[in-house]
Amino acid sequence: MSDLFWPGDERAGDLMTSSALLAAMVRVESAWLTALVGAGVAPAAARDDLEGLVGPADVEALAAAAEPGGNPVIGLVPLLRERVGDRNADAARWLHRGLTSQDVLDTALLLCARETADRIRRQLTAQVARLAELADEHAGTVMAGRTLTQHAVPLTFGLKVAGWLAGVLDAYDPLVALRWPVQLGGAAGTRAAWMELAGGLGDPQQVAEALAADVATRLGLAPADPWHTSRAAVTRVGDALVACTDAWGRIANDVLTLSRPEIAELSEGTGGGSSTMPHKANPVLSTLVRRAALTTPQLAATLHLAAAESVDERADGGWHAEWGTLRTLARHAAVAGSQATDLLAGLRVHADRMRAHHDEAAEDLHAEQRTMASLAGHDPSGAYLGTAGRLVESALARARRHLHQHPDQHLEENR
Amino acid sequence: MSDLFWPGDERAGDLMTSSALLAAMVRVESAWLTALVGAGVAPAAARDDLEGLVGPADVEALAAAAEPGGNPVIGLVPLLRERVGDRNADAARWLHRGLTSQDVLDTALLLCARETADRIRRQLTAQVARLAELADEHAGTVMAGRTLTQHAVPLTFGLKVAGWLAGVLDAYDPLVALRWPVQLGGAAGTRAAWMELAGGLGDPQQVAEALAADVATRLGLAPADPWHTSRAAVTRVGDALVACTDAWGRIANDVLTLSRPEIAELSEGTGGGSSTMPHKANPVLSTLVRRAALTTPQLAATLHLAAAESVDERADGGWHAEWGTLRTLARHAAVAGSQATDLLAGLRVHADRMRAHHDEAAEDLHAEQRTMASLAGHDPSGAYLGTAGRLVESALARARRHLHQHPDQHLEENR
Amino acid sequence: MSDLFWPGDERAGDLMTSSALLAAMVRVESAWLTALVGAGVAPAAARDDLEGLVGPADVEALAAAAEPGGNPVIGLVPLLRERVGDRNADAARWLHRGLTSQDVLDTALLLCARETADRIRRQLTAQVARLAELADEHAGTVMAGRTLTQHAVPLTFGLKVAGWLAGVLDAYDPLVALRWPVQLGGAAGTRAAWMELAGGLGDPQQVAEALAADVATRLGLAPADPWHTSRAAVTRVGDALVACTDAWGRIANDVLTLSRPEIAELSEGTGGGSSTMPHKANPVLSTLVRRAALTTPQLAATLHLAAAESVDERADGGWHAEWGTLRTLARHAAVAGSQATDLLAGLRVHADRMRAHHDEAAEDLHAEQRTMASLAGHDPSGAYLGTAGRLVESALARARRHLHQHPDQHLEENR
Amino acid sequence: MSDLFWPGDERAGDLMTSSALLAAMVRVESAWLTALVGAGVAPAAARDDLEGLVGPADVEALAAAAEPGGNPVIGLVPLLRERVGDRNADAARWLHRGLTSQDVLDTALLLCARETADRIRRQLTAQVARLAELADEHAGTVMAGRTLTQHAVPLTFGLKVAGWLAGVLDAYDPLVALRWPVQLGGAAGTRAAWMELAGGLGDPQQVAEALAADVATRLGLAPADPWHTSRAAVTRVGDALVACTDAWGRIANDVLTLSRPEIAELSEGTGGGSSTMPHKANPVLSTLVRRAALTTPQLAATLHLAAAESVDERADGGWHAEWGTLRTLARHAAVAGSQATDLLAGLRVHADRMRAHHDEAAEDLHAEQRTMASLAGHDPSGAYLGTAGRLVESALARARRHLHQHPDQHLEENR
Repeated sequence: MSDLFWPGDERAGDLMTSSALLAAMVRVESAWLTALVGAGVAPAAARDDLEGLVGPADVEALAAAAEPGGNPVIGLVPLLRERVGDRNADAARWLHRGLTSQDVLDTALLLCARETADRIRRQLTAQVARLAELADEHAGTVMAGRTLTQHAVPLTFGLKVAGWLAGVLDAYDPLVALRWPVQLGGAAGTRAAWMELAGGLGDPQQVAEALAADVATRLGLAPADPWHTSRAAVTRVGDALVACTDAWGRIANDVLTLSRPEIAELSEGTGGGSSTMPHKANPVLSTLVRRAALTTPQLAATLHLAAAESVDERADGGWHAEWGTLRTLARHAAVAGSQATDLLAGLRVHADRMRAHHDEAAEDLHAEQRTMASLAGHDPSGAYLGTAGRLVESALARARRHLHQHPDQHLEENR
Repeated sequence: MSDLFWPGDERAGDLMTSSALLAAMVRVESAWLTALVGAGVAPAAARDDLEGLVGPADVEALAAAAEPGGNPVIGLVPLLRERVGDRNADAARWLHRGLTSQDVLDTALLLCARETADRIRRQLTAQVARLAELADEHAGTVMAGRTLTQHAVPLTFGLKVAGWLAGVLDAYDPLVALRWPVQLGGAAGTRAAWMELAGGLGDPQQVAEALAADVATRLGLAPADPWHTSRAAVTRVGDALVACTDAWGRIANDVLTLSRPEIAELSEGTGGGSSTMPHKANPVLSTLVRRAALTTPQLAATLHLAAAESVDERADGGWHAEWGTLRTLARHAAVAGSQATDLLAGLRVHADRMRAHHDEAAEDLHAEQRTMASLAGHDPSGAYLGTAGRLVESALARARRHLHQHPDQHLEENR
Repeated sequence: MSDLFWPGDERAGDLMTSSALLAAMVRVESAWLTALVGAGVAPAAARDDLEGLVGPADVEALAAAAEPGGNPVIGLVPLLRERVGDRNADAARWLHRGLTSQDVLDTALLLCARETADRIRRQLTAQVARLAELADEHAGTVMAGRTLTQHAVPLTFGLKVAGWLAGVLDAYDPLVALRWPVQLGGAAGTRAAWMELAGGLGDPQQVAEALAADVATRLGLAPADPWHTSRAAVTRVGDALVACTDAWGRIANDVLTLSRPEIAELSEGTGGGSSTMPHKANPVLSTLVRRAALTTPQLAATLHLAAAESVDERADGGWHAEWGTLRTLARHAAVAGSQATDLLAGLRVHADRMRAHHDEAAEDLHAEQRTMASLAGHDPSGAYLGTAGRLVESALARARRHLHQHPDQHLEENR
Repeated sequence: MSDLFWPGDERAGDLMTSSALLAAMVRVESAWLTALVGAGVAPAAARDDLEGLVGPADVEALAAAAEPGGNPVIGLVPLLRERVGDRNADAARWLHRGLTSQDVLDTALLLCARETADRIRRQLTAQVARLAELADEHAGTVMAGRTLTQHAVPLTFGLKVAGWLAGVLDAYDPLVALRWPVQLGGAAGTRAAWMELAGGLGDPQQVAEALAADVATRLGLAPADPWHTSRAAVTRVGDALVACTDAWGRIANDVLTLSRPEIAELSEGTGGGSSTMPHKANPVLSTLVRRAALTTPQLAATLHLAAAESVDERADGGWHAEWGTLRTLARHAAVAGSQATDLLAGLRVHADRMRAHHDEAAEDLHAEQRTMASLAGHDPSGAYLGTAGRLVESALARARRHLHQHPDQHLEENR
């Protein structure tokens, strides 16, 4: 994946690529075939390992084969049958039996999305760690607070960072609360084919339930009743990812504002160059993070529309609108998360400039204080930083709890 | 609120109206004044009850006064001061001291939004009860399953309803998980004015924390650090409401489809008339529910954009974009919820038509079965309904748990 | 209309209110009744003037009556019949005959939308006049150019304003290009009722065409074949309005940025106050304009979705999703346009600050120049303002052409 | 481009791919270099042909190089310099001098977008031709009109197709009205570098204007003042493309509805298969077209947001959000257009079923007629098709004018 239209896209690596989806679909087919054999529905001879039978080189042909049936499973099943059939006719015969395209695609999509969510969870934890450092370090760094672009009352940079931290932690919660249910329903969600296949095996209902449970276990997903037309599993992923870009977008906006040369209270670790102006050091990471935050909410809206447009036992377009939209949303979020991590890691804080602006604007920044002191009947009491220290401490405590619960999560590389 | 542009809007009653917002803002100011007195910051003489001082008749003037400062609190504070000042100069003097507009507006907005969420929770519970009835009653009602508009395999209407039920229950969870934090931060989130006002009162930090806790308690909101620039509290409301319209939209789509005269397997209790065609009985409730589901996702996207556009200690437009958007989203959701409840209450199920279509299409509906039976080496086994019965039972069990936990919630009127 | 959730909403006056829609619907019914009489379809005695028969006091009852049929015409027709019937039974008998609800509502909606577009056209022209003044006055006002927030090369404020001007003029074009077609098709767009009613009148086809032409003329709309399910007339309005808020949003962003106290190159004429900070002068108009620009694109997207969801001879929800969405979009745009006009009228330009920043940053601002001069083999040539003067002149020429074509348009009051 | 997430994506071929963008950027650099030489700014020895210097194999490295500067031009310029420098040091020296990244990227993006628009124009014309055939052929094919899903009054299928045709023609107009302005402004839109480079050449202003005009001519774009922060050129492309998917989406909805087995009045030429149900013939093209129509409006909204978020002389994220969004929107539209063409080409019309449904529902379909006849005082007059014939003729006349103006446009292959 090299995308000249979305600089930084390669940070998302293989997340939600066509190759990754293909591999996930094969995992699902493989788990199902194994379960069929395990349950005694298919003969032991049908057991086979499908991994490696198809790969990135097949994507082009499978994409072309996807359109006539409307989804990429349509071409995959015969291809797998053909390839595995060369060595194992039973596997070819039993492969996919009892599934429908949507089972394979929905489950594979969630496998890919979960991988994205895991990546982003680690990014968020790394950010929590870095933000806690920054908030702690700058708990006493005085700066001008600004509301509606104008000077308000004094602030500490630590408190501003505590706000960023709160945003990141708020984004973490729904991400870990995501459910990853397996989708297994057969042609119209009744699992009728399973019962038919299991006709002679004791209690077919039990066989059916065992099949679903076995596949879920093999894939590490939650067992679930079919959700082919109840799409909360998908919309929640979208909402959770947008909550992340919301949190990062707000940080980016603050960095962009405070790194304006007339303010210059922050700067990115490495500024971005220009194709024509040799002096330039642009806040590129913030710019690219902000870009994502402007883009993802509308993608998540499309996922909701797709969910709302469910109808019958498989939607005529609503379902199909999900896949590419979720892919783009997920990759944009993963890229932005990685960029935000780098942004924070390299962020340079110019406490002297913060102090200077604060001092220059002291008259205005303390106007409210004078009113309050007059009201309370005493002279203004000094720094006018309120409970900033305690609020920073409160945010740090929350961060520490988070890091304690997720001790190693942020040690992995930022991609 | 009478809105010719959104038929049914009056179902939302006073939820999120200007009058309701005004009342909620007064509640916040009142709770704060009481807390100031309670903490000893303001003198006992400043205690006063602000309710009734302003009302719907003031909305027009307050709206006009809102623009110069950019929000409706700007005009409200002097008006309250003037009115309460006629009887209590101390109250007028201490009113709003330590707050900023955003404290009042954010907190009031959440109070109004919570009321909407409560209404919708009751609607969802009523729907769960009704859907459980329907699923149970029609667990054996055979019909044609349809995927991508075409006949697939047999289904029961009970299983279709079980899917609707799953959608509604899935929407309930995030709604009850919403957090309703009080927003109290003062001019830039430092609570500096509080400390200044509490200058002579022992530990001002403790006074400040007591103030925040007291107001939260009085308003029934969660105590919270200021979240003026971390807007998850707002975006989560939007996402939760859209999850509801998603669930209802999908039900509406099924009703619209199945009440087409050539299908006629469902019909609304009371069809809607036409201004020119005397024979008409249109599925109006479904149409209006579907309308909402097409509209709300984009409104929730705006809330996310607004959140992502946070900057400084108060956003220059992002904050302001939230209010009207949340209002419209909340009212649309409340109206759609009420309409969906009525739709389900009156829904007529034509089991004979379902059976007839099933029988006419039996050859196609059992095509998969023949393949499976052949694969399994036996004759097709009959009804081909798979585990539909168990899946309905599973949904009913989930519904029963829900209703057991919320025994009275659905007994209130549907508005 | 007093809306605490959208400060400034009253600037839109009666545009697209329920009362305005009601009046427009009555205009449509009235024009149709007159046309029926004029064509000889209805007897001369049926001629009547419907205006005044219903009014704002009826909105509440009509809104309540709208839901059962799904649109506000359903209740209006019997009410008009009842009221006019008191004095003219023929009018009551012939009223609305041959129309369907959608004819009345679509046509009335466009009448209201056109009024909004006319208002905004005048706003844009007033802005063109003001921007031309500003660009001309500041054609020589040197300032720092900024890209990606950082200093780039020198600029003139006149050139920046020329860019604003280009944006406003670009927004004008699609607004005046809007078509306002009458919608007249009868129950399903066949005009069958007209032919039936005109059965004995020579060539019924000619009668039908005369009816449509007559109504269009009376309402000042374009004659048109029925467009009940081809919704470009609506989506184009949405797109054109968003183009306006795009243009204003960008101006607002520049003002917000350049009025930051550390930059202070611009300020609004009258800054907005705070409920707690006495020194505040916030750029409120810019903030509120920016708010609209963050909101309207998603509303226009909903109009497109509604159009795309057309089906049959009247859409089951797509149509209904348009009305409230267009209303909100139109009012937001009209308010933002009025605020933008005021913003520009009062804008204060601090040329000394612009010069000072330019001079302080001269080294950076001229870095590209040094490269270029070196490449060209000569010393840097001075001001490095390129063709800024000519580009301003080019924009002014375009503005002058516009103002020449629309000489009086901007002299009306800014509402 | 093989995309398992968006079946049919390969129909868009190389439109708006990274390779296509790269080629377009090289075209822009090449035209600029040639113009520099032509104007005498660069020496004659600097003339060189850049095409072929870079290609698809460079995309990966260029994508990686794009992030540090925030756009793909940052890495392209040094690579081109290096490669051309091997044979022509003067070309390497003068390449890109006077341009900024945004000049190259904006102009290249429009070149790619124009290619997409051209493709879609041909698709639309092909559809006009096919729809005119269908409307003409079925001008007398009676069917049931349906409003709000229910039977309304009789219709002809020809009139329904005339409505589709109107939608397609309505979408054509804004597409051909699109302007394709070259973007050439230098670092901040002042063209200062050009003047510096042209220092010794007579009137540098004239040189500058000649440069801009020359490049525009070479690329076949419209000469234009810099529009780096006035983004109507981009948003109009988005709006025009969405107007297309709106028109196609509505056709798709009608096909999906009317090909339901209980209705069966239409069917796709080749139905789509299932991975498990052997009897299936799904309306796959309609489903995939509908998918696009649910997706594109939100992408166009993002383009508007990006435009509204312009600020300074280059936006800090708004600009960057455009590229990938426009790419996805353009490809989705091109794919949907091709699918819609195939859908219409293969559409099968079951006039017998239409007639049968009409006859079965005759009582209802003629209910309005009875009212009207009674009102007019005569017996119902027969078919009740109103002016359907004339309306079809009116649409056909519009189609003929279109086809006469664009005689060959639709003869090219449907990709």
